[in-house]
Amino acid sequence: MVPQSAPSHRIMDTPELIRKKRDGLELTRAEVFNFVERFTSGEIPDYQASALLMAIFIRGMDRRETADLTEAMLRSGRVLDFSALPQSKVDKHSTGGVGDKTSLIIAPAAAAAGVLVPMISGRGLGHTGGTLDKLESIPGFSPRLSFQDFHRVLAKCGLAFGAATEEFAPADRKIYALRDVTATVESIPLITASIMSKKLAEGIDGLVLDVKTGTGAFMQKAENARALAASLVSTGAAHGKRVHALITDMTQPLGNAVGNALEVIESVETLKGRGPRDLVELCRELTAHMLLLGKAADSLDSARAKYDSAITSGRAFEKFASVVAEQGGNPRSLEDYSLLPQAKHEDAVVSSRDGFISGLEARALGMASMILGAGRERSDAIIDPAVGLVLEKKIGDKVQAGERVCIVYSNDRSRIPQALDMIRQAITIAPKPVTLLPLILERVLNAPAS
Amino acid sequence: MVPQSAPSHRIMDTPELIRKKRDGLELTRAEVFNFVERFTSGEIPDYQASALLMAIFIRGMDRRETADLTEAMLRSGRVLDFSALPQSKVDKHSTGGVGDKTSLIIAPAAAAAGVLVPMISGRGLGHTGGTLDKLESIPGFSPRLSFQDFHRVLAKCGLAFGAATEEFAPADRKIYALRDVTATVESIPLITASIMSKKLAEGIDGLVLDVKTGTGAFMQKAENARALAASLVSTGAAHGKRVHALITDMTQPLGNAVGNALEVIESVETLKGRGPRDLVELCRELTAHMLLLGKAADSLDSARAKYDSAITSGRAFEKFASVVAEQGGNPRSLEDYSLLPQAKHEDAVVSSRDGFISGLEARALGMASMILGAGRERSDAIIDPAVGLVLEKKIGDKVQAGERVCIVYSNDRSRIPQALDMIRQAITIAPKPVTLLPLILERVLNAPAS
Repeated sequence: MVPQSAPSHRIMDTPELIRKKRDGLELTRAEVFNFVERFTSGEIPDYQASALLMAIFIRGMDRRETADLTEAMLRSGRVLDFSALPQSKVDKHSTGGVGDKTSLIIAPAAAAAGVLVPMISGRGLGHTGGTLDKLESIPGFSPRLSFQDFHRVLAKCGLAFGAATEEFAPADRKIYALRDVTATVESIPLITASIMSKKLAEGIDGLVLDVKTGTGAFMQKAENARALAASLVSTGAAHGKRVHALITDMTQPLGNAVGNALEVIESVETLKGRGPRDLVELCRELTAHMLLLGKAADSLDSARAKYDSAITSGRAFEKFASVVAEQGGNPRSLEDYSLLPQAKHEDAVVSSRDGFISGLEARALGMASMILGAGRERSDAIIDPAVGLVLEKKIGDKVQAGERVCIVYSNDRSRIPQALDMIRQAITIAPKPVTLLPLILERVLNAPAS
Repeated sequence: MVPQSAPSHRIMDTPELIRKKRDGLELTRAEVFNFVERFTSGEIPDYQASALLMAIFIRGMDRRETADLTEAMLRSGRVLDFSALPQSKVDKHSTGGVGDKTSLIIAPAAAAAGVLVPMISGRGLGHTGGTLDKLESIPGFSPRLSFQDFHRVLAKCGLAFGAATEEFAPADRKIYALRDVTATVESIPLITASIMSKKLAEGIDGLVLDVKTGTGAFMQKAENARALAASLVSTGAAHGKRVHALITDMTQPLGNAVGNALEVIESVETLKGRGPRDLVELCRELTAHMLLLGKAADSLDSARAKYDSAITSGRAFEKFASVVAEQGGNPRSLEDYSLLPQAKHEDAVVSSRDGFISGLEARALGMASMILGAGRERSDAIIDPAVGLVLEKKIGDKVQAGERVCIVYSNDRSRIPQALDMIRQAITIAPKPVTLLPLILERVLNAPAS
């Protein structure tokens, strides 16, 4: 289904619209647009919107309704247009995990391999981090660009990092605020419309989705992650976009570092070819799919080779250094990490016995990092870019009694004991070697509907 | 289940409470009270309440939850106490129909037969009329009594007619206002709690419920009426009250008159032993159940005999005349109907052919009466006590071409054509005699849980 024109605005009875969804009926395209437009304008009060959101939560929405909801939310705000730039525009979105710094790596890697990456990100909340928070730990870096500046950086560097402002999909902002306080967050059609309306506003041709599953993920069960991936991919297709989704494991943090400047260092190391195994694997696969969608490669294998070459040649790192410089950041901090924020205190969790790491509970480690000051419990909290934790061992690694498993970095000694305690409880050690789960569990691929 | 003390007030996470019901789980007694108390006090905003109401609508509530919700709403306001009066206190509640003026007849009839009837009523909305509107068409009559006056009238006359004010179950008023605009009205647990919280606030020992079904009723399907009746009866039992419910037919108006003063006249005629067959039958049965619950009779047959005697002896009419006088009304208007409000214009719908009346669509006739000015489309509309319609034929009656089926009374000529049109469409005439449905379809009886 290719988007048609928005339906004309006409008087509609809001309770009647709620009643339809309450009784499990499909809402028409006109009804979906009517609700989104009138709620965004303030004509429909919160109490009617939340009743409808609960009805949608329980009764669901089919693909057509979800695509219409996405489009109505997309059209509530600005949609960027990079059609003046000839290359394919491709982005990646992750449903959020602990230690997930892939954006900082794959955006420059994909740009180095020939696609444009107009990446607009948000901030972290709860146990998961946000790309903007990580980037802002680089001294001077700013994601607050005018459209003209964003366009210029994108044209010059092949990538640009922007902030999701109220310009984009304001309906999503308003709907999300209401979902957050009315227990209507974990709904596949509502999540789909929220993600896709913001991503489609970037004016992209293709999108790779990293849908996390496991204890550290929003979608803890694989079946829910699969359903969300299918919904995201089909909604993208309904809007004429090429979309691939990878379902990836988030039972332990991705890579070793959790915390903003710490993750920047790990990202830069990865761009320099020295990244941890799991992070490298995921970045390579995500970038490969971006290149495939952006028609910069004609097979996954050739796309992987392009990622490898972007890293080994140093071009991916150069892209990152150039975009950091363009956006006001100090590129010297990417060479001399002492220019990045430094934590005053350091402590470690050591293994109490010999064995093999069998569990590193991602959610608990994310919460420990938040307690150290790296994350936000509430959206208005201020974060400390220097603090966090670094895992010295990952699941499957051999460990000896007394050996360090995790180092914590803090600027506030009083927070350390609670964090260490949470980390200790998040670590499981088994006497025998454990079988590692694959990192990439499934791929959901779809071409646009004709 | 006998009501326990209200659970102590403690901090509760509202989204967590919504989430439980959203996922189809039972709310605890503490959670139900917490929601009602904090919503009534304004601590829980409308948008959270409407999300919970929608979750309750779709997921339902079991008997225990419904009883707790009823009790929490009851306790949000004043509960009357007539324990100083030795006789049993019994009331009746109807779920609303067209031409339903039984309250005006059974309250004095039951009082004449030895029970006390502390009747607190509301106003009409939409196609159904309200007891207060009918009573207020009697010149001078007022239902606005202080508790002391209400108590005095009840003690003196055996009955009193009061108005449902914001004193009683204020939580219900607030919840109902929200349900009305969020498509969460037609929910059995929510309807049950709304009705029962207000009725239990009357300080009664027993309650007879008249649950209407058919095209003119709120619960159009018999299965829904049956479910509501069961829920009302079991909720009453959970509160230690004796409750009987009759499921009665509302496909055609009850009696012949629809409109406020017109219904007063018909009620007075019925109290004088000259009521229409169906109205008499229902009043006799409802009163009999009230007497049974109020222990003024030990069988339905003896209770029916007491009703008959209250009517034929004139004691029921005397009770009504005395309560009207006590509450400021002119009792002479019950003898000389010209003292009641009179409509200026009169018109009639005549039969277009010979046959038998096979349909008198109650909802459409209620709407026609509303259009004439007898009812309210919105709760703040002003009604005209004089206007309405009177059926000269009921279902099953033989009719000849040109014979009058319905007379309309109006004070505004311009409204007559539309009303006549609606009435014409509400009437069906068959060539052959039709079988009449029984008026009383089912009885749901229950003793209090021990």
